[in-house]
Amino acid sequence: MRRRTLGVAALFVFAVAAMAEPNLPSWHDGPAKQAIVQFVRDVSDKQSKYFVPPAERIAVFDNDGTLWSEQPLYFQAVFMLDRLKAVAPDHPEWKDSPAYQAIVLRDEALLAKVGTKAVLELLAIANTGMSTTEYDETINAWLKTAVHPRFKRPYNELVYAPMQELLSYLREHGFETWIVSGGGIEFMRAWTESAYGVPPERVVGSIVETKFELKEGAPTLVREPKVAFVDDGAGKPVGIYRAIGRRPIAAFGNSDGDLQMLQFAAIGDGRRLAVIVHHDDTEREYAYDRESRIGRLDKALDEAKARKWVVVSMKDDWKRIYPWETQ
Amino acid sequence: MRRRTLGVAALFVFAVAAMAEPNLPSWHDGPAKQAIVQFVRDVSDKQSKYFVPPAERIAVFDNDGTLWSEQPLYFQAVFMLDRLKAVAPDHPEWKDSPAYQAIVLRDEALLAKVGTKAVLELLAIANTGMSTTEYDETINAWLKTAVHPRFKRPYNELVYAPMQELLSYLREHGFETWIVSGGGIEFMRAWTESAYGVPPERVVGSIVETKFELKEGAPTLVREPKVAFVDDGAGKPVGIYRAIGRRPIAAFGNSDGDLQMLQFAAIGDGRRLAVIVHHDDTEREYAYDRESRIGRLDKALDEAKARKWVVVSMKDDWKRIYPWETQ
Repeated sequence: MRRRTLGVAALFVFAVAAMAEPNLPSWHDGPAKQAIVQFVRDVSDKQSKYFVPPAERIAVFDNDGTLWSEQPLYFQAVFMLDRLKAVAPDHPEWKDSPAYQAIVLRDEALLAKVGTKAVLELLAIANTGMSTTEYDETINAWLKTAVHPRFKRPYNELVYAPMQELLSYLREHGFETWIVSGGGIEFMRAWTESAYGVPPERVVGSIVETKFELKEGAPTLVREPKVAFVDDGAGKPVGIYRAIGRRPIAAFGNSDGDLQMLQFAAIGDGRRLAVIVHHDDTEREYAYDRESRIGRLDKALDEAKARKWVVVSMKDDWKRIYPWETQ
Repeated sequence: MRRRTLGVAALFVFAVAAMAEPNLPSWHDGPAKQAIVQFVRDVSDKQSKYFVPPAERIAVFDNDGTLWSEQPLYFQAVFMLDRLKAVAPDHPEWKDSPAYQAIVLRDEALLAKVGTKAVLELLAIANTGMSTTEYDETINAWLKTAVHPRFKRPYNELVYAPMQELLSYLREHGFETWIVSGGGIEFMRAWTESAYGVPPERVVGSIVETKFELKEGAPTLVREPKVAFVDDGAGKPVGIYRAIGRRPIAAFGNSDGDLQMLQFAAIGDGRRLAVIVHHDDTEREYAYDRESRIGRLDKALDEAKARKWVVVSMKDDWKRIYPWETQ
């Protein structure tokens, strides 16, 4: 029996150690990590005056630029453009379309001339009209073949290792982790479970209209060329309300599109956490904020300073960026 | 050690017995219960050729008429009408409104004359304009005071005991249980967790537009008098796609508004379950189907027969209807 008792004691010690030492190996032990860990302790310790029951430990994460990279172009935009080229043979009429030519030739002057509306209309044609199942297959096929121009890897390998660790750490402490992104819901659901452990029903995103029908007897949802909801900016708290129905106590973002989500989660009674991932690492990833067209971080950075939110420096707070880097 | 071994053996036997005997005490041991239990065994037994991994064991339930009563008028409609009367003092202009008079006097002839649109507009004024938090408080207050005209009990006590048991039984077998209802999402979320063990984030329903703002510095969602999504009929598979992102393998409904949801879940490869709760018990609840204005069951009943879906007779399959009845 002694051996068993020792074993139990060892397990207990190990468990206490696990509580004390968060499993965040890709994080430097700086102020950002310390603030996050202190918050998690405060809300998950039953003795704490800030204790929050597990059901209310809702943490929401933006995706593009917060959980994975978004430069030089939102990865979903790359997919949609690739899709446009892939279906072009079915659309001989596009040959004479200035919008199509501008996109394929990446002709900025022509793009400016034809305007956003014409481009979006073409993208809508290329990315709707099929069933949701068929569209999911094209996403999965694309993920297997497309590679990032700089890192020469599939796009879904460009996820941030420190954030993967953080998601697991939060779930181990009773949090529900949700993705709340301006990206298309179907594009994320294809890979968020394997990349982040976030299942489809915990993904909130922008959506197009879908129409239910029995197609040759089979239940089918057909994608329609009409936007149903844009989950960005002031839309994010709305998306959270619709999908979750509780106000989060923690939010993670990286751009002005996340400002209202951060406000929604972080302003109010009790212990709350708002975190901004700041892209300041040209060498290992990218550096951009107030002037960027992609993932602009301007107002939210001011607000973070004013409200003392946590700003994570990718350069200084993260030992590595991607899971395939050695630590 | 012998005692411990016996204890373990006893536990094992108990566990097997628990698997063998579903905890559904309010169900008669008829064909409906047997079909449901057989389905659950087929998809949750690892040895079964119909085995489904837990993450894909999605079960969706309509609410009105499937999980609780809906006669003589949808309970949410009663709430909204009560709310109209409650805020009438703030709207002296309604005194001369034929729509308001028709509603308050329950004057059917006048109601027909003023039309649905005028009535809905009044209801929209009474049920929007405030924050979601304020509106939730009015729902909770109403649930504490309003009583059903026939059963003289709070409305949220008129839930079906056999369905409560069924929800627990499914969850014990690894299912995610979701509510997918034409009712307003906020009206259900106020009480579905205590009544059914279904938390807010597992409730899909109709929604009005909400607008995010900082109101005196506090993050607020304001209800707007505009419908954003109607989660009924062909809208139900759409609502499921948006919120869950997986096709359910089991669906439970009671009316034609559930037909497409039942089709969406039940038609296809693998083992699938569609169940219709048939209201045929005048004595203990209500009896209605093809001719009813509330919860009409006509096309879905034909489809159930054609596709051999399970039709539950409340009269013959349920030992009791409500939790407060003795068995």
